[in-house]
Amino acid sequence: MNIEMIRAAAARLEGHARRTPLLNSPFLDEIAGRRVWVKPECLQHTGSFKFRGGWSALSALDPDTRAKGVIAFSSGNHAQGVALAAQRHGVPAVIIMPSDAPRLKIDNTRALGAEVVLYDRANENRDAIGAKLAAERGLSLIKPFDDAQVIAGQGTTGLEIAKQAAELGITSADVIVCCGGGGLTSGIALALEADAPSLRARPAEPAGFDDVARSLAQGSIARNPALSGSLCDAIVTPQPGNITFPIMQRLCGPGLVATDDEALQAVAHAFNRLKLVAEPGGAIALAAALFRRDQIEGDDVIVTISGGNVDADMFARALATLT
Amino acid sequence: MNIEMIRAAAARLEGHARRTPLLNSPFLDEIAGRRVWVKPECLQHTGSFKFRGGWSALSALDPDTRAKGVIAFSSGNHAQGVALAAQRHGVPAVIIMPSDAPRLKIDNTRALGAEVVLYDRANENRDAIGAKLAAERGLSLIKPFDDAQVIAGQGTTGLEIAKQAAELGITSADVIVCCGGGGLTSGIALALEADAPSLRARPAEPAGFDDVARSLAQGSIARNPALSGSLCDAIVTPQPGNITFPIMQRLCGPGLVATDDEALQAVAHAFNRLKLVAEPGGAIALAAALFRRDQIEGDDVIVTISGGNVDADMFARALATLT
Repeated sequence: MNIEMIRAAAARLEGHARRTPLLNSPFLDEIAGRRVWVKPECLQHTGSFKFRGGWSALSALDPDTRAKGVIAFSSGNHAQGVALAAQRHGVPAVIIMPSDAPRLKIDNTRALGAEVVLYDRANENRDAIGAKLAAERGLSLIKPFDDAQVIAGQGTTGLEIAKQAAELGITSADVIVCCGGGGLTSGIALALEADAPSLRARPAEPAGFDDVARSLAQGSIARNPALSGSLCDAIVTPQPGNITFPIMQRLCGPGLVATDDEALQAVAHAFNRLKLVAEPGGAIALAAALFRRDQIEGDDVIVTISGGNVDADMFARALATLT
Repeated sequence: MNIEMIRAAAARLEGHARRTPLLNSPFLDEIAGRRVWVKPECLQHTGSFKFRGGWSALSALDPDTRAKGVIAFSSGNHAQGVALAAQRHGVPAVIIMPSDAPRLKIDNTRALGAEVVLYDRANENRDAIGAKLAAERGLSLIKPFDDAQVIAGQGTTGLEIAKQAAELGITSADVIVCCGGGGLTSGIALALEADAPSLRARPAEPAGFDDVARSLAQGSIARNPALSGSLCDAIVTPQPGNITFPIMQRLCGPGLVATDDEALQAVAHAFNRLKLVAEPGGAIALAAALFRRDQIEGDDVIVTISGGNVDADMFARALATLT
């Protein structure tokens, strides 16, 4: 896993992924006590950065292998990113989802051309179902984060941040990244190391699910005690990846942690000041910038909004924190 | 008023206004029956395209005149656009607002560095108050739409659309523009005439407040029977401007009209499919694209989202149309 893979992914994503802007607001600067720059990957195709990794992985397959199709396990952003990337490559995608996944997510994934295979969480083994299908049809598995080509795709976000920060004259800053398994964080960290070494990636996680922060602090992989119970469900994973963790350990600053309520407030501020729709997990880095100012240094901070796939009820709950 | 003024405004806005992207979603294409491309000016500084016109007008003043300050009448998007443009030019701004304007809008305008002067709508004449202040302090009036430099600023949106459409290979399309007094519409129309003559600007207005559509149809300026009662308050004006109307008459296709309820549905779709926050008036062009498909021709349609300054209650009301 190296910077050349990220640059190659950027070339493959050219004209396919969106180059998202870097946005700011004086009102956010006021809360954070420094200038806040927001990279809104909620504006990426399918509403999250996951399309980058999906496209990168699919476009890296050799054509004969790719033509047989791909398979992914996800009920969320990764599912939609892989589905659209497959549709635009003109190849089949099979997405394995729990049968109790929200109807809307199932429908959206199908509408992007994927075949959705449902399994019963209580009585069926998703890995066995996936392995059987993959073997029968010759499908390639697209992992959500612990895969070099997926990390390379997410890392293109970091190449853009490096360039945009240079254009703005930002010479030194923390780059806070919403962090689940670490695909986006490690990809951005590698890109910054090469193109903007004075910018430092830092993972942000929801309180109670801060496996990466604890792993970085203790110097080895730590697990989360639970896997549900956070509003930031999109970025909750059991533990950092075997590929992503060593990269984060080498390059990232200490992890930041914010509460679910702070994530909701950040969603409301993104609505009010940036006119962006963020999901709670996608707003955790902004929450850290706004509410952990003493743990951040410098005149500028850059944050990712990693996704915006939030339903109306949860969004209304976030907006209620404004009053 | 000509294209050279728009190009000059674009040069002055370079590095100050945001070049907003052109976004799309297969889900919106499905509803509209053609490809829909969205120009999200809600992502512009202060949450609406008005910053472009404000910056253009301020930057066109000679420095000595500008140093004395500017004045504007507005309780909405124009107020914030002018206030921020003045703040960034380091000159005073006086904004005249009705005393019953929403507290948040007054606070936001003040937070952008402007002096807000409130007047009593029932008992005071705002024009007299403004004229007195302008004379005493030598302030320059920045009109909301019927001013050549303001139109030139808004027209920079059209230069960007022309370029972005060419990059996407769009050779022919209607460009539907949220229309109040016609500053944005006429500016875009002039830019398209020069840089993308196969793209045609068309105004979109809320039902009952379709003065521009009726003016275009009858060939002379028509007034709205009422000035309040629409959720799309940001784009309700008494009648088209004396500068903007002849431009629209010469260049624009027929006006499109959508209902308040359709505007709310468009707000909800922008939330759901583009992760954008649009205000109802800012979504009227998208509403026309989604719900007036028989009045539009071609495989592609381009729409502006002109602003996103909407409060949480109204936004929740819009999202409720999804269910």
